[in-house]
Amino acid sequence: MISEKMKGMVKGSSAIRAMFEEGKKMAALYGAENVYDFSLGNPNIPAPESVNKAICEILSQEDPVEVHGYMNNSGYEDVREAVAASLNRRFGTSFTGEAIVMTVGAAGGLNVMFKTLLNPGDEVLVFAPFFGEYRSYVDNFQGILKVVPPQTENFQPNLKAFREMVTPRTKAVIINSPNNPTGVIYSEETIRELAGILEEKEREYRTSIYMISDEPYRELAYDGARVPWLTKYYHNAVVGYSYSKSLSLPGERIGWLVLPDELDDAREVRGAANVATRILGFVNAPSLMQRAVAKCLDEKVNLEFYDRNRKTLCDGLKDCGFSFIYPQGAFYLFVKSPAEDEKEFCERAKKYHILMVPGTSFACPGYVRLAYCVSHETIVNAMPGFKKLAKEYGLESRKD
Amino acid sequence: MISEKMKGMVKGSSAIRAMFEEGKKMAALYGAENVYDFSLGNPNIPAPESVNKAICEILSQEDPVEVHGYMNNSGYEDVREAVAASLNRRFGTSFTGEAIVMTVGAAGGLNVMFKTLLNPGDEVLVFAPFFGEYRSYVDNFQGILKVVPPQTENFQPNLKAFREMVTPRTKAVIINSPNNPTGVIYSEETIRELAGILEEKEREYRTSIYMISDEPYRELAYDGARVPWLTKYYHNAVVGYSYSKSLSLPGERIGWLVLPDELDDAREVRGAANVATRILGFVNAPSLMQRAVAKCLDEKVNLEFYDRNRKTLCDGLKDCGFSFIYPQGAFYLFVKSPAEDEKEFCERAKKYHILMVPGTSFACPGYVRLAYCVSHETIVNAMPGFKKLAKEYGLESRKD
Repeated sequence: MISEKMKGMVKGSSAIRAMFEEGKKMAALYGAENVYDFSLGNPNIPAPESVNKAICEILSQEDPVEVHGYMNNSGYEDVREAVAASLNRRFGTSFTGEAIVMTVGAAGGLNVMFKTLLNPGDEVLVFAPFFGEYRSYVDNFQGILKVVPPQTENFQPNLKAFREMVTPRTKAVIINSPNNPTGVIYSEETIRELAGILEEKEREYRTSIYMISDEPYRELAYDGARVPWLTKYYHNAVVGYSYSKSLSLPGERIGWLVLPDELDDAREVRGAANVATRILGFVNAPSLMQRAVAKCLDEKVNLEFYDRNRKTLCDGLKDCGFSFIYPQGAFYLFVKSPAEDEKEFCERAKKYHILMVPGTSFACPGYVRLAYCVSHETIVNAMPGFKKLAKEYGLESRKD
Repeated sequence: MISEKMKGMVKGSSAIRAMFEEGKKMAALYGAENVYDFSLGNPNIPAPESVNKAICEILSQEDPVEVHGYMNNSGYEDVREAVAASLNRRFGTSFTGEAIVMTVGAAGGLNVMFKTLLNPGDEVLVFAPFFGEYRSYVDNFQGILKVVPPQTENFQPNLKAFREMVTPRTKAVIINSPNNPTGVIYSEETIRELAGILEEKEREYRTSIYMISDEPYRELAYDGARVPWLTKYYHNAVVGYSYSKSLSLPGERIGWLVLPDELDDAREVRGAANVATRILGFVNAPSLMQRAVAKCLDEKVNLEFYDRNRKTLCDGLKDCGFSFIYPQGAFYLFVKSPAEDEKEFCERAKKYHILMVPGTSFACPGYVRLAYCVSHETIVNAMPGFKKLAKEYGLESRKD
C-alpha cells in the first residue's frame, strides 16, 4: 500500500542494503579485520575535541529555552552572521547573515532549494558521475534530472555535451566538487567556462538558471588544492554546505545554504527557502548544533589522516597496474574497471574480501568507487588482495 | 523565479510573519511586559535539567564517531529499542525496535509518512479545526487534503460528516489529540467509532486507510486525563511523536514514528519510511539528540506551569463572559469570537496589546486561538484588557 514511486525506491535501496548486509556477513565469517570494506562514505575519524567542548560550554552558559528553542526557520541570527563573516574572511565576499539559511545537512539544503525553485517538469542538469541521491531529491519535486555524460579523460564536467542539453526548461545545474565519486576538483577554468555558457543561455532563453553547489567535501582538498568559490564566478550560484565531513558530524545533520544578493529575485528566493525549510518538515536546523558549529568555524578534522590513506591507496593500486585519475579531494577514488562489466569486477573482488561500489550507481559504468575513509590498516591489508585481483585481469604490475 | 506553488506559500507565510513583526513593534513601543502575545505555540519553560546532563554524559563517555555518526536511517538500534520498551511499559503494547523510526520532529515524521503512502491525487482527511501546516505536508506529495467540518459543540471530530467524505481514494486520516488549536482530547468513544468507520470503509472499498496521529502534545494532559493510544483501537494506526513540548526541545527536531506489526504491508511501509527519511534530505534524526532523549524517556517538563496558566486564563476569560470548551490538554484555548468576523475581534484586541490567531488559520472561522505557553504574569496582566474587550462586545461578566 506504499506509493508507486516509493516501490521503485525501496527496491533500489534494497540493493545497497544487500551490499551492507553482505559486508556484515563477511565480517562475521572472516573477522572484521579481514574484510576490506571500501563501500561506505562514512567518516571514521572523530570530530575535533573543540566541538564537544563547545556543546558543553553552550549548555552550561546559555539559556536552555534559547538553546533548545525555535528560532527563525532560517536559523539563529547570530549563527547566520557568524557563518557569513567566516565566509567573507575566507573568500573575500560580503555576505550578510540574511544570505545564510542553516539547514539539516547538505541533503536538507538541496531539498529546500529544489522545493523553492522547481515547477513540475523543470529540468535539472547534473554531470556524470554523480551522487545517486540527487535523482531522488529532484524527483521529490517532479523535476526532471538530465544526466550530462562523463568526460572520462579527466572527470571534469563535459561542457560540450552540457551546452547542447540546456533548454528553456533548465532551471538548475548541480555542481559537486570535490566530487563524489571521483575526488576530482572542478578547475577554475571549468567553472569560468560553465558560468559563461549559463550566462549565454540565460540571455538566449530569458530565464534564470541556478548553479546549485553541493560542497560537503570542500575542506577535504589535498596538496593545497583550491576549490573555486562559485559565487565569485556566476551571479545565480547557490552554495550548499555540510559539517558532516569537515567536522565529522554526519549524524547531526547540520549545514547551510548561501543565497547571495546577486541571485535573480534574491529576496523572493530567500523567503521561499525559509518557508520550504518549514513545510518540508525540517522546521529549522537542529538548534544546539547550530550554536556549536558557530563556535567551531575555523576547526577542521585531521586532514592528514585522509591524505595518508589517499597516498597509500593510490600508490598501491597504481603499482598493481590499476588506472584512475589521481584524486585531489574528498575521500573517494574512482578506478577504471579491468572488466568491461564493473559489476563482475566488484563480485570477483569479494573473493579477496574487498567491497567496492559499481560505477553504474553514479551513472558511470566501467568504473568502481572506493571510499578511503577507512583505517589505514584496512588499505595496507587489502593490498595483497588487490594485487592478486590485478593479476587475474592480466594488469601489468609496475613493481614485479 | 521561485516555483508557482511556493509563491502562494510565501504569501501565506508573510501574513504570519506580519503578525510576528507587529508583536515586536508593539513590544518596542509599549515595552515587552505590556504586550500580551498569545499567538505563538513556542514553549517558554526550559528542558528538564536531566536532558543537558544526559548530553554531557554521552559526550564524555561514548565514542564520538558513534555519537555524531551516521546510523541506520531509521535511527540507532539501541535508541529504537529503548523507545519501544518505554511505550510497551506505558501502553501494554509489544513493539520491537523495528517498529520505531526516529524522526526530525513530528513534522519530519508526518512528511515521511505522506511520502511513504501518497500517490498523486490520494486523499487525506483532517478534522477542523486543525494545524494549518498539514495542508502543506500533504501538498508536498500531491495529496488532496479534505477538511471535515468542525463539530463546535465539543470539538470532537465530526464523524457523521467524516463517514460521508471517505472515498476509495482516501489513503489516510490525520488525528491530532490533544488538539491544536482547541486543547480538546479526542475521547475513547470517538476513537472507537472512528476506527469502526475506517474498518467498514476498508472492507467496502478493499483499501487500506491509515490513521496518522500527530501527538506532540500527548504528555500535556491535565487533571489526569487519558489520551487514548491509537494502535490499540485500529490496525492501520501510525503514531508520530515529538519531544518539542514534552521535553521543551522544539529547536532540536527530535521525535519518532511507530509503525506497528499490525499495519497492512507493515514490512513494506517500514522499508519505505526508512528510504523516505533518507531521500527527503533528513537522512536521519539528529544523532546526539537521539541518544539524549533515550536517556530521558521518563522525564517531562513541569506540567504544573502550564496547568496553572490554563486555570488562570480559563477562569479569567470565563468571568469576562467569553465562551469556550474547557481544554484538557496542550497549551491552547479556542475561544468563541464575540464578533461574527473573528479577524475584527483580533484587530480590536490589539488596542489592549493582546495578540491572538484567527480561527480561519485553523479552518474554523468565528473562533480565536490563544497559546498559553507564556509567563503567568502575561495572563494576569492581560486580564484587564480582556475585561474591557468583553464589555465592548456586550458580554455579560459573571463577576461584575
